[in-house]
Amino acid sequence: MRNPLSKKIVDIQPSGIRKFFDVANEMKDAISLGVGEPDFDTPWRIREEGIFSLEKGRTFYTSNAGLKELRKEIGRYLERKIGVSYDPMKETLVTVGGSEAIDVGLRCMLDPGDEVLIPQPSYVSYLPCTIMADGVPVVVPLQYENDFKLTVEDLEKYTTPKTKILIMPFPNNPTGSIMTKEDLEPVAEFAKEHDLYVMSDEIYSELTYQTEHVSIASLPGMRERTLVINGFSKGFAMTGWRLGYCCGPAAIIEQMTKLHQFAIMCAPTTSQYAAVEGLKNCEDEVEEMRRSYNQRRRFLMHEFKRMGLECFEPFGAFYVFPSIKEFKMSSEEFATRLLQEEKVAVVPGTAFGECGEGFLRISYAYSLEDLKEALSRVERFITRLRENDGR
Amino acid sequence: MRNPLSKKIVDIQPSGIRKFFDVANEMKDAISLGVGEPDFDTPWRIREEGIFSLEKGRTFYTSNAGLKELRKEIGRYLERKIGVSYDPMKETLVTVGGSEAIDVGLRCMLDPGDEVLIPQPSYVSYLPCTIMADGVPVVVPLQYENDFKLTVEDLEKYTTPKTKILIMPFPNNPTGSIMTKEDLEPVAEFAKEHDLYVMSDEIYSELTYQTEHVSIASLPGMRERTLVINGFSKGFAMTGWRLGYCCGPAAIIEQMTKLHQFAIMCAPTTSQYAAVEGLKNCEDEVEEMRRSYNQRRRFLMHEFKRMGLECFEPFGAFYVFPSIKEFKMSSEEFATRLLQEEKVAVVPGTAFGECGEGFLRISYAYSLEDLKEALSRVERFITRLRENDGR
Repeated sequence: MRNPLSKKIVDIQPSGIRKFFDVANEMKDAISLGVGEPDFDTPWRIREEGIFSLEKGRTFYTSNAGLKELRKEIGRYLERKIGVSYDPMKETLVTVGGSEAIDVGLRCMLDPGDEVLIPQPSYVSYLPCTIMADGVPVVVPLQYENDFKLTVEDLEKYTTPKTKILIMPFPNNPTGSIMTKEDLEPVAEFAKEHDLYVMSDEIYSELTYQTEHVSIASLPGMRERTLVINGFSKGFAMTGWRLGYCCGPAAIIEQMTKLHQFAIMCAPTTSQYAAVEGLKNCEDEVEEMRRSYNQRRRFLMHEFKRMGLECFEPFGAFYVFPSIKEFKMSSEEFATRLLQEEKVAVVPGTAFGECGEGFLRISYAYSLEDLKEALSRVERFITRLRENDGR
Repeated sequence: MRNPLSKKIVDIQPSGIRKFFDVANEMKDAISLGVGEPDFDTPWRIREEGIFSLEKGRTFYTSNAGLKELRKEIGRYLERKIGVSYDPMKETLVTVGGSEAIDVGLRCMLDPGDEVLIPQPSYVSYLPCTIMADGVPVVVPLQYENDFKLTVEDLEKYTTPKTKILIMPFPNNPTGSIMTKEDLEPVAEFAKEHDLYVMSDEIYSELTYQTEHVSIASLPGMRERTLVINGFSKGFAMTGWRLGYCCGPAAIIEQMTKLHQFAIMCAPTTSQYAAVEGLKNCEDEVEEMRRSYNQRRRFLMHEFKRMGLECFEPFGAFYVFPSIKEFKMSSEEFATRLLQEEKVAVVPGTAFGECGEGFLRISYAYSLEDLKEALSRVERFITRLRENDGR
């Protein structure tokens, strides 16, 4: 029998995130600080609306682009949050999480050989989805020294005449780095100068802890060359509902809707009804979760400082990204030993790109209690490492 | 600014199904017999389980391949229904409807230039998804004379050394045609002889009216070269839940799961919990819906016969596919005039491939009352056409 598989898919590396958790899940007393998902149940109001829609028998397809009411609410929300307005009928597509929007967006925009700038460390989907869409991923390594922000100097090194799309993964998973308006401005200028389209993945936009999230789409001249990708998974604690959206120029959204229709049909109906409620009436619940994350974030930063573990202060998402370079071992080795010796699962920075080497992603979407126990185990582990190292 | 769009997506024709319904929806007193979705709400038991899972706060990601419990139930269901057993851990992927499975399957199996045999008339996604996956779609026109079944003679005409995948769209949308075991056997032999993989889209498998559904995967030597695609939308009246699955050889499912993880993450959690209940305890509800469809199907066949409208008797899905060739106009023109003059929306056969010319797809996923009213309008319309034609 012939080989059933395409060369492209076989060459793509599987995600390095889950590996440790599958081990941790089977391990007694293990604590996982790994999975990128809120520890909160979806706010009750939102679940209640989902329940109501099921009781009412709203179990049919919605229109391909999503419920009109939801698209309108998304428009109002973005207007309020990032100051950009999108036509609900022509510039908005409701998707199966932000991840579908990334995949469908790349598939609709890339011709073979088009280059995509992917700042790393960043979420694991950009690179494989670019390859599957026949694009050429060009990794832009972000620097610890710049708090893992993207700079024009970074871009200049990697932009070529074939560069078509710049992915903007901020607030960033795994570093927690954010881009302020001042940080974004030169990047926007660069994008316009080089006629780049921007795919701005703002899935963590609700989770910033110092300044409000700013979208690059809100900068002058950027709306027409930016796809804003967002969703309900992180800020609204709705991961399992699989609901996201993409807003951008009508010409792109039209094509994305066409592909979405053939490949997916529509986003889940119950989730769409529930999300309307989330956007309309759950600002308080979202804010309360944000405050919890912030408390945990400060706890972690405080503890790292006390332990002498180097870590830049992240102001977004729910991750910290401490450096473990002092221990002279790879992130993979560190994470493996930490799990074996102290039963704490974290993700090696290299799961998010080679330039994550020397770092760990620690999620604080866990209770303070778990975080405290995990940190005391981490402290025991690094104390042992330092002692064995003769310090 | 440069063109944001890929050549591939721009060249793909939008689906021809929705057009008429968008018009019909805005038209007072219009009856649509068009959309391919059950008119029943999801059975209450299934909704109740979805509600329960929301109450319990099961709002998190499931594992990428789907809830283990659901995969096990899918295994039991297929064993029971088609007599083929699949390993829930290695040979089963839970997807966002059958449509995601088609898309992801093609993306994981096709190298550029690989040919895909697509029998038509058939569902609108196979062709665009093949093109988006860099494959070459090769349309195999099915013949009215063969009750729109696929024959080896059809295959012989279109198979080349580059043919890799044969799509088997039975029970068929839009013709309602099914393939019995005897019909499938020579096709299976042909597939083995020519080393073809089969993507068997069995989404309408619960809806057959004469003989039980037979999967080509159950024939000798076919399990290892067949992807069985199925889901909950049609038989379980769960369209809006967006839940399907794909079972097949572990090597293919492994790659599909990888792509699914990057592009989709996991199928919606509430839907997965609800579907477990569907598979376990809803055989009666499914059977009751099947009986309703069958009653309507027989009503339509009876009425067509009375009106003298030529139509082969379909034994699957919930569509009839009458011929309108006697009226010497295109399907598109017929459907347009029927909508304008009598406010009945149907889909021109050409929406499912050029060889659908001369036919209409009429869905009977509508109440008998609606069907009766619609049919009396159709009768008025064709009587007028025949009179004007001087007969």
